Amino acid sequence: MKIAIYGYGNLGRGVELAVRQNPDMELTAVFTRRPANQIKLQTENVRVLPANEILKYKDLVDVLIICGGSATDLPEMTPMLASDFNVIDSFDTHAKIPEHFENVDNASKKSGHISMISCGWDPGLFSLNRLYASAILPNGNDYTFWGRGVSQGHSDAIRRIDGVLDARQYTVPIESSVNAVKEGKAPTLTTREKHKRECYVVAKEGADLQKIENEIKSMPNYFADYDTTVTFISADEMEKNHSELPHGGSVIRSGKVGKDGKHTCVIEYNLKLDSNPEFTASVLVAYARALYKMNNKGVTGCKTVFDIAPADLSLLSSEELRKKML
Amino acid sequence: MKIAIYGYGNLGRGVELAVRQNPDMELTAVFTRRPANQIKLQTENVRVLPANEILKYKDLVDVLIICGGSATDLPEMTPMLASDFNVIDSFDTHAKIPEHFENVDNASKKSGHISMISCGWDPGLFSLNRLYASAILPNGNDYTFWGRGVSQGHSDAIRRIDGVLDARQYTVPIESSVNAVKEGKAPTLTTREKHKRECYVVAKEGADLQKIENEIKSMPNYFADYDTTVTFISADEMEKNHSELPHGGSVIRSGKVGKDGKHTCVIEYNLKLDSNPEFTASVLVAYARALYKMNNKGVTGCKTVFDIAPADLSLLSSEELRKKML
Repeated sequence: MKIAIYGYGNLGRGVELAVRQNPDMELTAVFTRRPANQIKLQTENVRVLPANEILKYKDLVDVLIICGGSATDLPEMTPMLASDFNVIDSFDTHAKIPEHFENVDNASKKSGHISMISCGWDPGLFSLNRLYASAILPNGNDYTFWGRGVSQGHSDAIRRIDGVLDARQYTVPIESSVNAVKEGKAPTLTTREKHKRECYVVAKEGADLQKIENEIKSMPNYFADYDTTVTFISADEMEKNHSELPHGGSVIRSGKVGKDGKHTCVIEYNLKLDSNPEFTASVLVAYARALYKMNNKGVTGCKTVFDIAPADLSLLSSEELRKKML
Repeated sequence: MKIAIYGYGNLGRGVELAVRQNPDMELTAVFTRRPANQIKLQTENVRVLPANEILKYKDLVDVLIICGGSATDLPEMTPMLASDFNVIDSFDTHAKIPEHFENVDNASKKSGHISMISCGWDPGLFSLNRLYASAILPNGNDYTFWGRGVSQGHSDAIRRIDGVLDARQYTVPIESSVNAVKEGKAPTLTTREKHKRECYVVAKEGADLQKIENEIKSMPNYFADYDTTVTFISADEMEKNHSELPHGGSVIRSGKVGKDGKHTCVIEYNLKLDSNPEFTASVLVAYARALYKMNNKGVTGCKTVFDIAPADLSLLSSEELRKKML
């Protein structure tokens, strides 16, 4: 099974490392818009090729893992590449998923390929758990908590403030709220009661720190509705203590079963990830296997985590799965 | 969608209550080996019919939920009924799953029906999570903890001891071990380090309590390998404090990702169930929907949780799922 990567940032590097853990896969090529000599892979014998020449290399690719940004890259790249390749992306702009799905589905169906969008952990594994839990406990409440983890979007928002050199924002779930939910208390929670935001900021010399802090804390949508802490640190400290990209979170459904809803059941799914991009890459790679198996059975068109039978993700045969994992 | 129940014990009663939570389903009949007048349903306008006349009532059934025991009932019932109905069971004798699967699969395929075995939470949702997590994190360790919950098998084993009137056994995961696993420490754990066993026993008047306690604690397979506590209580106390059937547990996979396995990721799935049979029933009912949808698309033969795409469990259409849950 030949895997190729399209776009070599944090996620692309994660995919490169994840492919190595799967003996049925081989990384054949990395396609990039940057000059090839600027890319240093961690694997030997993998070709680095110009993105705009990808159509010359169809033979190298069973599944193409597209590692671009959701804002501008993926809405264009994925439908375009879906006409010539089996593709998978991690598109995460929730509101635009239906439109993106249509575009990719049309391209894949016309050309007889298979594709998958919005693969990762949210959207992705979290969505999957929301679906399973709500189908099993129709009479219940859903909760999603994110973190403790770095939010790139919030970090970027701080970096755009005048006087800020660098910033890292951690989304932190409020522990007492999480525990109440896990215990089946089904509380009603405001935005402020669910998460808090911790910001670490490197300011320019002489910048007005109080002004920066106020600007962060009052930023609508991003910070105003949360208890936010701002800590100014040195560039060295940022490098030393905040260079990793951890993340995670919980999807919890608390539901009532039995006579008059007498009994409570809680279904809880937690992720604790030292590296957000490397884990997302691992999810993409497992689903790339599923796409390959499904396409070999004649399945075409665009899929999401909802449409893919779990067995297709595994290296093991159905017989082995029933024997060893059921 | 017409649901019928075959066997009306704890699980059958749970299915009856679970069907009510699903507006696309109707409970049409309960088939029982007991005299119909001994069965008191909790729902009106549902027929109670003799199990041995079920073939007369094919029109009443889209999916038949078989609520029998795994030891002797299901190995016989499910293959037999699979020749005439779409069926689902909760067969949980792990070692005999391949054989049971073959028997049911043959019967279903010959008759053009669909079927599912080993549906519930373990086997079932726990198996599903073992599969997803191991496909995503191939380089890792799996852990399953059960409890705190009532084990029927262990309770029965105590009841067979001379001088015992009634007994309830709780399987309890060792908290420090669970926490070590959740933190990604990937410890090696002995049987004793994973679970302890709490036994509540009602003894006959004048029975030798020390002898009973010794007999429990030294029972091979069931108790000898565990730290076991035995508490003698009155029949009243048993009735008052131990009449429920709570259960639950955790499936956790701790895996390494990134360069040289630098980063740890932990995937954790927890269930906390006030009622084991009512929750199992809720899982069966959601999968009954999936079977019905799949059979309408022409799918036949025996399935497990591994073979069923998540979307088929839901009341919502694929479009709605993508819009609301992805």
